[in-house]
Amino acid sequence: MAARRSEFALIRDFFGPLAARSPQSLGLTDDAALIGVDQGDDLAVSVDALVAGVHFFPDDPPEDIAAKALRVNLSDMAAMGAWPLGVFLAIALPSDHDDLWVQAFARGLEADLQAFGLGLFGGDTVSTSGPLVISVTISGTVPQGRALKRSGARVGDDLWVSGTLGDGALGLRVAKGALTDCLSPADRAFLLSRYRRPDPRIALGLALRGVASGAMDISDGLWADGIHMAKASCVLLEIESPSLPLSVPAGMLGRMGWDVLDDALCGGDDYELLFSAPPDLRDAVYAAAESAGVLVTRIGHVRAGDPGVRVLDAHGLDRKPGHRTGWTHESSLATGQGEMDRRKGDT
Amino acid sequence: MAARRSEFALIRDFFGPLAARSPQSLGLTDDAALIGVDQGDDLAVSVDALVAGVHFFPDDPPEDIAAKALRVNLSDMAAMGAWPLGVFLAIALPSDHDDLWVQAFARGLEADLQAFGLGLFGGDTVSTSGPLVISVTISGTVPQGRALKRSGARVGDDLWVSGTLGDGALGLRVAKGALTDCLSPADRAFLLSRYRRPDPRIALGLALRGVASGAMDISDGLWADGIHMAKASCVLLEIESPSLPLSVPAGMLGRMGWDVLDDALCGGDDYELLFSAPPDLRDAVYAAAESAGVLVTRIGHVRAGDPGVRVLDAHGLDRKPGHRTGWTHESSLATGQGEMDRRKGDT
Repeated sequence: MAARRSEFALIRDFFGPLAARSPQSLGLTDDAALIGVDQGDDLAVSVDALVAGVHFFPDDPPEDIAAKALRVNLSDMAAMGAWPLGVFLAIALPSDHDDLWVQAFARGLEADLQAFGLGLFGGDTVSTSGPLVISVTISGTVPQGRALKRSGARVGDDLWVSGTLGDGALGLRVAKGALTDCLSPADRAFLLSRYRRPDPRIALGLALRGVASGAMDISDGLWADGIHMAKASCVLLEIESPSLPLSVPAGMLGRMGWDVLDDALCGGDDYELLFSAPPDLRDAVYAAAESAGVLVTRIGHVRAGDPGVRVLDAHGLDRKPGHRTGWTHESSLATGQGEMDRRKGDT
Repeated sequence: MAARRSEFALIRDFFGPLAARSPQSLGLTDDAALIGVDQGDDLAVSVDALVAGVHFFPDDPPEDIAAKALRVNLSDMAAMGAWPLGVFLAIALPSDHDDLWVQAFARGLEADLQAFGLGLFGGDTVSTSGPLVISVTISGTVPQGRALKRSGARVGDDLWVSGTLGDGALGLRVAKGALTDCLSPADRAFLLSRYRRPDPRIALGLALRGVASGAMDISDGLWADGIHMAKASCVLLEIESPSLPLSVPAGMLGRMGWDVLDDALCGGDDYELLFSAPPDLRDAVYAAAESAGVLVTRIGHVRAGDPGVRVLDAHGLDRKPGHRTGWTHESSLATGQGEMDRRKGDT
């Protein structure tokens, strides 16, 4: 039986040291943090909650759980073109938690806070009889009027995505023990890492200020999130599915007969940026991507029409959504069932 | 079996309308909220998490649960002397939740948001196999350098509290079905309301800027929280227990033999302000209290000495902490046991 610290002691021993270098935290000893904002800037603030068994596996490495909780929030800052400053962590720990688990979680959080230049500004630690719940509130700054928004896509714009799509969903399959017979250990590790430790596109979001007309991050899948952008902008997003960027392992799976396009379109947990930009700013988009060191791919067009998403195949024909049209985290961690249905020809 | 909305539909139907009047929320359709901050102001931000069965009873009225989640955060703003602007709500709903429950929760939230002039700026709705977890992040503004802090108490200052103490702990007893034989229904309703719907002392916090030297809110009990202030300020807080302000029902219970001082000193959930101020500002403190319409009481002195809290009885003798020295929410909702131990003479 591991020794169990009180909530006060957990904060003091594990989270306090993380906050020590952020003056905004007031040492975690006051009732609120104080965040200074430069004149002309807005504060961008976003909240994401993650639940064990829904958004991650309870036995995932605690360092990875911390990294994911942080990174899905950072991805929101990237989508707004905001410069992230720091986070607040509210964590409901199972009453039978192990202090060593919390220590490892805090270590993983600290590594990522350092890597992204963030502070821990505050938080709350409570106990629950249920599964672990992590709620991260992130704050960042963006010059007034320069934030990237979902509502900015205009008819005639190009449609772009960063990185590669479908890796998150494929990484989840790897986490569930699938794909062992068709991928090398290195490829499986790559996909697993894409699922567990997404790369928030902060630098790209900053570089796209004044270039992208509209932007959002893809957490629920390109198709479902595209509909959100389409509705916010009152436009039709036309996506050419052969253009969707796939990672090397995903491309290989596609050639082996897996319906990776379904993962790329409807899988969740990619945390890439979907954005629009006028065609005369293509060079500026590529320059932004180069400065950020991130791949960007033109995947379609913004059209006039009923707000929604239209996906065209190589022959210009409408693709219908697969058996998943929207990612729901609740069902995503269910084990293996239907795995084989996803081979091409079975759908 | 009640109809169950998706997370998207819950946000759209129940929480979206609450956000509609706050431009900062961007209609809850973007990846982050954008909060403007006036030049010369800091943003004060605080997070509190509440868990069903720990911080409230699962079958408490949903409107009261929403009010409490909001008000404990507002109390943090009051303690900092901050002007609250708006909140972010992350809610992990039990997978078998009833949409009518969520609707009632949203209605209670809206009523309190309106009452306190707050906006709903953003949030996240997720599903959990465990109990309901509510995490509220609140943001407010405070002029730079004018925030009230725990570290400001100085030797020679008076020590003050707002309102009355012990009502939260007594209200919890009422919620557990106790005190039926010794209090009228009206008195029980008063105490229950103090437990379920604490009054955040926003106006008092604002009026105490430049008057109070140090301040915090009492959520874990005067004794335990006093130790936090004492340590942050490196002082000894000397509390004269006969001075502690009691509500009419609490005072009555005291005369009937209940150890209400223990509730006033060690009970949680009072959400009053503990603050210090120089003796030559007593009139200013009373003026601040009058402008805020809140009772304030001088309960002791800030002394030099080992950081901590010393409680003196009517004879100037040290009172030892009762069987509770610090409030732990985990154990607070356990039913009735030990209730009778709390009569005077049994301890």
